Amino acid sequence: MRMSADSDPAAAAGAIARGLRESGGVDVLVIGPRAVNQTVKAIAVARGYVASNGVDAYFVPSFSTIRVAETSEERTAIRFSVRTRHGAFTGTVPGESGESA
Amino acid sequence: MRMSADSDPAAAAGAIARGLRESGGVDVLVIGPRAVNQTVKAIAVARGYVASNGVDAYFVPSFSTIRVAETSEERTAIRFSVRTRHGAFTGTVPGESGESA
Repeated sequence: MRMSADSDPAAAAGAIARGLRESGGVDVLVIGPRAVNQTVKAIAVARGYVASNGVDAYFVPSFSTIRVAETSEERTAIRFSVRTRHGAFTGTVPGESGESA
Repeated sequence: MRMSADSDPAAAAGAIARGLRESGGVDVLVIGPRAVNQTVKAIAVARGYVASNGVDAYFVPSFSTIRVAETSEERTAIRFSVRTRHGAFTGTVPGESGESA
């Protein structure tokens, strides 16, 4: 998934938590200081979501080159590889339909 | 340690790598989007430093309230807990005296 500076951190946190549950890991690609900041906050919130399932999430940052679709320009992005110590797991996370967060 | 928006990421990366080697973990406290961005970059670089010692570093973000010394004002900071899967380790990291990075 990609985050922008305008992404809603709460919605992004839900998407990260669901990705962790379903596949045990999510990669988030971001460009720019504000988007990096939003992503770190979203991961901190997502950690709280999955902690209620007894899941311990962490992440690993790395640099990545991506090509911007609109301009074909190459940019250096930060890749956040979000993982758990447990792999995929069962349980609900906030933001899913039919569930009140 | 604390990072500000003006901290040098390369110097910070060296400090993080040394902290990982000496004690197996470092906590970095930051306030503000630009400082968060600098810290994420510094951690990505520090990961490369310690990877040459076979050490796999990761980190965990959380929110933290800190009191700013100058004004006694309370601010919400991001705490980056940087850890390795191995605890402390031996080896040199770039930025130490007598060693060329």
